Amino acid sequence: MTRLPAAALAALLTCTACPAPAQEQAANDGPRNVILIVGDGMDEQQVTIARNYLHGAGGELHLDRLPLRGAMQILTTENNTSGRPVYVADSANTATSMATGVVTSRGRLATTAGADEDVPTIVELATAAGFRAGIVSSASVTDATPASFAAHISFRLCENPDLMQEVVVSDIRLGDCVADMKSSGGRGSIAEQLAESSLHVLLGGGAKHFAPTAEGDTRSVKQVARDNGFTVLESEQELAGAPVDARLLGTFAPSTLPVRLRGEDGRTAEKPRRSFLNYIHRYLGSVTLPAPMRCEPNPAFEGIPSLQAMTDIALRNLSHDNDKGFFLMVESASIDKQSHERKPCGSIGELQQLEEVLDSALAFARQQPNTLVIVTADHAQAAQLIPETSLFAAYPIPVFTPGYLARIVTPEGSTMAVNYATTTFFMEEHTGAAVPLYGNAEALGRVPPFLQQPDLFRISSDYLGL
Amino acid sequence: MTRLPAAALAALLTCTACPAPAQEQAANDGPRNVILIVGDGMDEQQVTIARNYLHGAGGELHLDRLPLRGAMQILTTENNTSGRPVYVADSANTATSMATGVVTSRGRLATTAGADEDVPTIVELATAAGFRAGIVSSASVTDATPASFAAHISFRLCENPDLMQEVVVSDIRLGDCVADMKSSGGRGSIAEQLAESSLHVLLGGGAKHFAPTAEGDTRSVKQVARDNGFTVLESEQELAGAPVDARLLGTFAPSTLPVRLRGEDGRTAEKPRRSFLNYIHRYLGSVTLPAPMRCEPNPAFEGIPSLQAMTDIALRNLSHDNDKGFFLMVESASIDKQSHERKPCGSIGELQQLEEVLDSALAFARQQPNTLVIVTADHAQAAQLIPETSLFAAYPIPVFTPGYLARIVTPEGSTMAVNYATTTFFMEEHTGAAVPLYGNAEALGRVPPFLQQPDLFRISSDYLGL
Repeated sequence: MTRLPAAALAALLTCTACPAPAQEQAANDGPRNVILIVGDGMDEQQVTIARNYLHGAGGELHLDRLPLRGAMQILTTENNTSGRPVYVADSANTATSMATGVVTSRGRLATTAGADEDVPTIVELATAAGFRAGIVSSASVTDATPASFAAHISFRLCENPDLMQEVVVSDIRLGDCVADMKSSGGRGSIAEQLAESSLHVLLGGGAKHFAPTAEGDTRSVKQVARDNGFTVLESEQELAGAPVDARLLGTFAPSTLPVRLRGEDGRTAEKPRRSFLNYIHRYLGSVTLPAPMRCEPNPAFEGIPSLQAMTDIALRNLSHDNDKGFFLMVESASIDKQSHERKPCGSIGELQQLEEVLDSALAFARQQPNTLVIVTADHAQAAQLIPETSLFAAYPIPVFTPGYLARIVTPEGSTMAVNYATTTFFMEEHTGAAVPLYGNAEALGRVPPFLQQPDLFRISSDYLGL
Repeated sequence: MTRLPAAALAALLTCTACPAPAQEQAANDGPRNVILIVGDGMDEQQVTIARNYLHGAGGELHLDRLPLRGAMQILTTENNTSGRPVYVADSANTATSMATGVVTSRGRLATTAGADEDVPTIVELATAAGFRAGIVSSASVTDATPASFAAHISFRLCENPDLMQEVVVSDIRLGDCVADMKSSGGRGSIAEQLAESSLHVLLGGGAKHFAPTAEGDTRSVKQVARDNGFTVLESEQELAGAPVDARLLGTFAPSTLPVRLRGEDGRTAEKPRRSFLNYIHRYLGSVTLPAPMRCEPNPAFEGIPSLQAMTDIALRNLSHDNDKGFFLMVESASIDKQSHERKPCGSIGELQQLEEVLDSALAFARQQPNTLVIVTADHAQAAQLIPETSLFAAYPIPVFTPGYLARIVTPEGSTMAVNYATTTFFMEEHTGAAVPLYGNAEALGRVPPFLQQPDLFRISSDYLGL
């Protein structure tokens, strides 16, 4: 009935990795590296849903085998200089916490709440100190999480020069970045800042944001990147053939990369169907739950490089002929995006992609022992694992979620019910729980069991001696 | 902007408590104790909600200062001998995992799924080996979590002799325990089993379950307990005056103990009120959210002993003149029960009670260093911290939860929105996420960063050498 017999437990529990960090640091030479792996929206519900599907309820993720596990509190503030706390974050302010150590307001990239001051990111500090830096994401590389590590802007949706004067989605004006335009003395759009950045490797989606003409220029943003020394890659084949000694900008889809898994025939979570009587009173009539479904490969993923393939190239190029070391952030972005869209199979597949990235990171760390590997999330999400058979099934009335429900048939033959019910909007909200945090042996003694998100910046900076 | 300056971090991170367990065990004499503190339904959302309210988003719970933090996967099975996994648990099967190391089906106390065989609990094994054992709960002591540690029955609601032939709630027949009656060769109801148990201390609610006449007897269950050596306590004053050298059965309310905090004027989470137009289409009309509220003391808590007061008496009596040691399980039950009822203030107050119990446990462990303190939850719950201002507020349509919402004004002056939306029933469901697990210095090297719930039984048993 258990997965952990006494002998295995004893083997696990010997305190193998607790030398004092200072001694270790003095004893080891060679490059020092930080690999920060971020599962966007990867909270404990998402982790458990993925564990149950990928390895069974009694199985283990690769994450579960890491020697360090903790919890990280997320901090957000209102958008003014003496703002009160806000209890639920977005990916812009959370990435800013991790990239700069500064707590800011939702929507901001590496700028302060209210005062709108730019704050240096770990990518900027690391490259200034002679380290290389890389970013890999399954989102557009201009999306909030990757961009916060190398760009500064007041509004996350100003991803390219055409979006600076007005961001309009579904005919609704959501904001602008006029103050950040170069003509206003600013740094320009996110894509422009990335093209001009000191990054060594930048891989993900978002090709469409590099096509527009740079502000006050005749060149495309992509050409600006080339002129800044980047080799531009736009296909799986080009990625595989990328030169080892080049700085790389790879964009493998117009925007977010397609995900690996989807629901059967593209199904998402669905509303339970209520009979007429049930509309009169919720204890009357009957309710038909969505039919169970399996997860299946997403045809749109064909020809898209995996997150691991991008990570492997990033690690290769970052470490090639590099005595100093590097900082690499890898984001599995669509754990979050698929949860917003109520697609549990999609989230599961992207957590599996994160697991593969972890494999690569740990393999690299075996070659270069001075490599700190940290895995965490930026914020919690909406999905909840709820009972397939209600706790109240004995009551002869309909008992069902008011939200959207997916009933997933798992490889071990049970049905897993996933609920999305934070909003009636077409996208789910984030949630505010502290998120899981994991580390390799290098993290033991450096990462405490409970920390706040900005502490990650300081832990990474300290490890690199910045 | 951060809570963890470099010096404090360094102090936290030195690996102070990692001697090999075997050496430590050999070197230390004196009593060995296990204190297992269970927050029923205390998942990461609940912990964060309580942290934000009690200490501020940038503050720390006492839990956050414990040196060990991990995650614990919950395992449940269908009710047959070759059952498939069930992904969401109840408090009966989860307590059975912790008390016996055996995975069983929902509703069962220390009995196997399908075969219905009794399995020994850590309370029984510990007392047989000469340790004392105690249980403290803010639920009825006959409720699933406490009872699973010292009773064996197929259906958790058979709490007293009058409920063995039929359990009826709201005119609905939920089950029976005829096969467990003494006249069937069984052990009788939960209250009868507890009255006849080897427990040294049993404190909580549930007086009404000890009033009925024991099966095949002329005595009340309470009298059976007295005749088995228990001193019976029924008020805060009697608890305070309890003799140190007595075995104690204390029941301080008819059923569950009243909780410490409640919403302003008794308010719970409420449904957003939708205008007529919004019923025609969810993007039309307007929606009025529940007004913000504060938490306030619950008048019904007056005269009820705190969980800490019960724990202090339990620790005193368990350790008095005891060279061998003890096992104590303390449950803060109503983190879960208040979440079922959509009462976030109630859950916060009961998590605060758990924090006080932790203080007492750690103070005790400073006196008796061979004391393993573990804090965990049995399963996750429904409450979710959602944005007070939607991520999609820029869209000029109503964006609101389809469930129940509480907007709590926190002491730091922000508003915290808590959503309950797992079901349209009058009670929320449990959820299936892995739960947090914490330990004191004695847990370092003994409790791995990821484990499965039944492993807790083995860790506790091994610590006591059972």
